[in-house]
Amino acid sequence: MLRMNRNERIAAITGILTSNPNTIFTLSYFSELFNTAKSTISEDAALLRDTFQKFGLGDIETVPGAAGGIKFIPQPVYQQAAAFVKDLCRRLSDPDRILPGGFLYMNDIIYMPRILKQIGDIFASRFLGKKPDFVITVETRGIPVAIMTAHSLGCPVVVARREGNVTEGSLVSINYVTASSKRLQTMSLSRRAVQKGGRALIIDDFMKGGGTAKGMQELLKEFDVEIAGVGVVIATREPEVKLISEYTSLMELLTVDESGRKIEIVPADWLNQ
Amino acid sequence: MLRMNRNERIAAITGILTSNPNTIFTLSYFSELFNTAKSTISEDAALLRDTFQKFGLGDIETVPGAAGGIKFIPQPVYQQAAAFVKDLCRRLSDPDRILPGGFLYMNDIIYMPRILKQIGDIFASRFLGKKPDFVITVETRGIPVAIMTAHSLGCPVVVARREGNVTEGSLVSINYVTASSKRLQTMSLSRRAVQKGGRALIIDDFMKGGGTAKGMQELLKEFDVEIAGVGVVIATREPEVKLISEYTSLMELLTVDESGRKIEIVPADWLNQ
Repeated sequence: MLRMNRNERIAAITGILTSNPNTIFTLSYFSELFNTAKSTISEDAALLRDTFQKFGLGDIETVPGAAGGIKFIPQPVYQQAAAFVKDLCRRLSDPDRILPGGFLYMNDIIYMPRILKQIGDIFASRFLGKKPDFVITVETRGIPVAIMTAHSLGCPVVVARREGNVTEGSLVSINYVTASSKRLQTMSLSRRAVQKGGRALIIDDFMKGGGTAKGMQELLKEFDVEIAGVGVVIATREPEVKLISEYTSLMELLTVDESGRKIEIVPADWLNQ
Repeated sequence: MLRMNRNERIAAITGILTSNPNTIFTLSYFSELFNTAKSTISEDAALLRDTFQKFGLGDIETVPGAAGGIKFIPQPVYQQAAAFVKDLCRRLSDPDRILPGGFLYMNDIIYMPRILKQIGDIFASRFLGKKPDFVITVETRGIPVAIMTAHSLGCPVVVARREGNVTEGSLVSINYVTASSKRLQTMSLSRRAVQKGGRALIIDDFMKGGGTAKGMQELLKEFDVEIAGVGVVIATREPEVKLISEYTSLMELLTVDESGRKIEIVPADWLNQ
């Protein structure tokens, strides 16, 4: 391999790091790839860190030690995150989104990778310090957000099923009651999916009474797993007392008024300062 | 904003482009961000293109015209893709993955973002030329692969449901028969989810008889949508004649021998040359 100049190295390092958030690449890896000294890579990393911070593109962290190296941490600056969520609220307020029964159509948002990427980055930077080992959600609509949050965190996803599935081996199942509709539901998790003693970040698209998130907590107790946090894209204001007391939402849904054709949705308090 | 030097611009441009694959950013956008001439940005883009190609990191394309600009196209080189899939086969051949009934446990693979990202990049580069407007899958296990493929393609995902869901508005539903187990199944898609006349890329994690993919094709006919392609992570060798004749798989599953504790899985022909 020919020796590269600094511009080329910077481009290649940035491309590799940003495609794999929160994943450590050793200095040796880059040093061999570019046929250059590790100290040169360190200097490149320092320049990258400054530039990324200057443009609010995230952080480049140096991890010391034998398993050490450099990694990219997505870290949206507060103003960017707040502006993004404010814009989501504007889009979700469109009365054409009101469905019969007073539901809110949001599939176009929840299944758009560009939006998911930003939501994932916000959740990842919010919960990185809680050191989750994996992200957990329950099928179906929480999966995209969970995947992108895990992508930003550099960790795996575990998906609890509403019904058991023969292709996942022996299961641990619990029954739980949804807080809002008081329906009895089942939630199952493959025994193989979770290692005992880990830390889980619970992610979902929507929270009303908190029954589903509470169900995931109960399910995880069966695996001796600690909860690193709970993140939901939208939480309803009512009921104010939910089955889960500690959670982070991006948006708060106040009303979906079917007859008056009006939706009220606002950024969560922590994004509205 | 202070004027940046070239290294810093390269780092920032790379970070922005690679975080948003197949998304066009105008030269004006960067020119304003860095307070520099558009011609300078063009030169930076040319350097980026050369470097990315040299390291097999993908392509940087210049899109001419009023809506033009530059974008990043993930484009794993053939050798990288082939080596990655070969390694997946090795990991999936572990006899500990055999589940009662002769099923293969693969959730740890299918829910690991780092692996999904690579699978998504391979599918995206394989199908980009077919110009899909969106990616479609059916719940549940196809969703992560579909999301990451759509992320690489810069397009949205549409998820067909096994059962209708009140929060998705009026639905189009079809019944279909699974090719392998001859069971009657239902598949539904929200009317709002798909625009008539678009082009769909069908993505799923697993294909045996092809009944599910065929079901998605039938469902899309109701929306006058053309099929841009079909991509599945694993296809079984038997039955050789599937309900879908044209598809791209990454791996071919030959046998899961429960009593002999043996799994045979190999890279698909096109990755094995």
